[in-house]
Amino acid sequence: MTTLIFGHQNPDTDALTSALSFAEYQRQLGNTDVEAVALGEPNDETKFALNYFKAQAPRVIEKAAPNDVMLVDHNEFPQSVSDIEDVRIRAVVDHHRLANFHTTYPLYYRGEPVGSTNSIIFELFEENEFTIPAQLAGLMASGIISDTLLLKSPTTTDLERRVLPELAKIAGIDLEEYGLAMLKAGTNLAAKSDLTIVEGDAKSFTMGGKTIRIGQVNVVDLNEVYARQAAIEQTMTDELSKNGYDSFLLIATNILDSDSTGFVVGSGKEELEKAFNGKFDENGRLALPGVVSRKKQVVPPLQAVYEG
Amino acid sequence: MTTLIFGHQNPDTDALTSALSFAEYQRQLGNTDVEAVALGEPNDETKFALNYFKAQAPRVIEKAAPNDVMLVDHNEFPQSVSDIEDVRIRAVVDHHRLANFHTTYPLYYRGEPVGSTNSIIFELFEENEFTIPAQLAGLMASGIISDTLLLKSPTTTDLERRVLPELAKIAGIDLEEYGLAMLKAGTNLAAKSDLTIVEGDAKSFTMGGKTIRIGQVNVVDLNEVYARQAAIEQTMTDELSKNGYDSFLLIATNILDSDSTGFVVGSGKEELEKAFNGKFDENGRLALPGVVSRKKQVVPPLQAVYEG
Repeated sequence: MTTLIFGHQNPDTDALTSALSFAEYQRQLGNTDVEAVALGEPNDETKFALNYFKAQAPRVIEKAAPNDVMLVDHNEFPQSVSDIEDVRIRAVVDHHRLANFHTTYPLYYRGEPVGSTNSIIFELFEENEFTIPAQLAGLMASGIISDTLLLKSPTTTDLERRVLPELAKIAGIDLEEYGLAMLKAGTNLAAKSDLTIVEGDAKSFTMGGKTIRIGQVNVVDLNEVYARQAAIEQTMTDELSKNGYDSFLLIATNILDSDSTGFVVGSGKEELEKAFNGKFDENGRLALPGVVSRKKQVVPPLQAVYEG
Repeated sequence: MTTLIFGHQNPDTDALTSALSFAEYQRQLGNTDVEAVALGEPNDETKFALNYFKAQAPRVIEKAAPNDVMLVDHNEFPQSVSDIEDVRIRAVVDHHRLANFHTTYPLYYRGEPVGSTNSIIFELFEENEFTIPAQLAGLMASGIISDTLLLKSPTTTDLERRVLPELAKIAGIDLEEYGLAMLKAGTNLAAKSDLTIVEGDAKSFTMGGKTIRIGQVNVVDLNEVYARQAAIEQTMTDELSKNGYDSFLLIATNILDSDSTGFVVGSGKEELEKAFNGKFDENGRLALPGVVSRKKQVVPPLQAVYEG
């Protein structure tokens, strides 16, 4: 039976393209009966990358059983396919914290504290002396560009600085030019519904027994978010009620100057102020200077406050 | 601050020697401030290996804080150092199921469904083109021999079949001769207290909300265990009461003919019979023909019954 390979819910570019690259790696290893799928439609940024390299979006699945699965770019069950508890997990490749995850059987698990999942998959190709096709190299580069904001995010490691130029060369792209075009394609706020802004890249985290939903949206001008703040917060409140979250945090990140603003509904205001040593202003905005990474700069300090 | 590297509680030969080999790997990577330690004294088999290769046993620790840690040959917190929740886990290398484990930060995690942790560490040396010193090669070979019963256990994979002869060559040992001598050194039941037989290699597992303790002892003649069965079962009952286990299972394994007998105290008799499709006889012995691996042949079917 086909083994399904997929990234997290609300797939971003690294999640979606690392499913494609890990599937190709598995095929070159000799595991031909694998299929890259996704837990959601590509976002605008990912669509730009797929179009540019003339690649198809993987089909979207709702459930995985009875197939075995391989997870890329995530491990936490609340971020995975709905029936993850019912399927056999054969492999994981990821660069996030490891939590809310367990298996009955030993598995292949390759986790590294690096900037993107595609960088780890690049290492796998390299260790086995496999060849990366040009189209795939472009998609892998897109995943790395997305996760590291073109090597500017503090999540960037030496691995990305080495790997991304190599992939760009294989793909035949100008890194700066292509990268900025791709990132900007994902920031067109006018084309996004309130729900997409709020939920498009949101993930759930369990902290101190509470369910914290954290969304992030990239922009080139934070005023575009401020202009829609009331509608955005209403949508966050609706999602919080509907799904029983304790807190819903949205981070709006200016990718050009690497600053963010935080908004919150539900509980958690006090915890956020403590975590970031700041105050929400009279408009309900928390300045997060220098913050661009949810994984590295938002989740750890917030978790420390909730569980401290 | 020194990063501590250690295997699971009740260290077996693979747990103890993989701490040594992963520490050497880290040093060759450039992380010189690491120390291999252990969560217990070496058993008779491991002592034989350490003596043979003129190596010192790592010092035993009770707590790890405030040091960072790297785990080898285990990941589950109940099998790790007592204050594992309080320390930062930098890396894990393991070949077991992944469960009861979580981190706040991304980490290096290398898990593979193979026969021993030392085989994975061999791959790490190989990928980096690092050199394995002869003494360390002997210790790594000992870990693989122990975990795979000299390549006869069903946990053995092609990786061990490839790696073990290479290590034996570096170490300058005759694999069959050394391997059998080492395994037999661990089976001298006359020299083992009842408590060592019961607890010497025991691990705790959570299954369906219950705490199941599973010990294993290797022998060359099962009659040596039968002759002490009453005292052994009394010791199991004492340990169960003292530690609040729901069930205590002991597997006695004949390493020469690859068969086992199971004994149980507390609850779990029915679950065991169902898991192994057999019956405890009038002496309280459950025949487990062909069963030699707790990890591969005992835990998964038992967990399926408890959680099925």
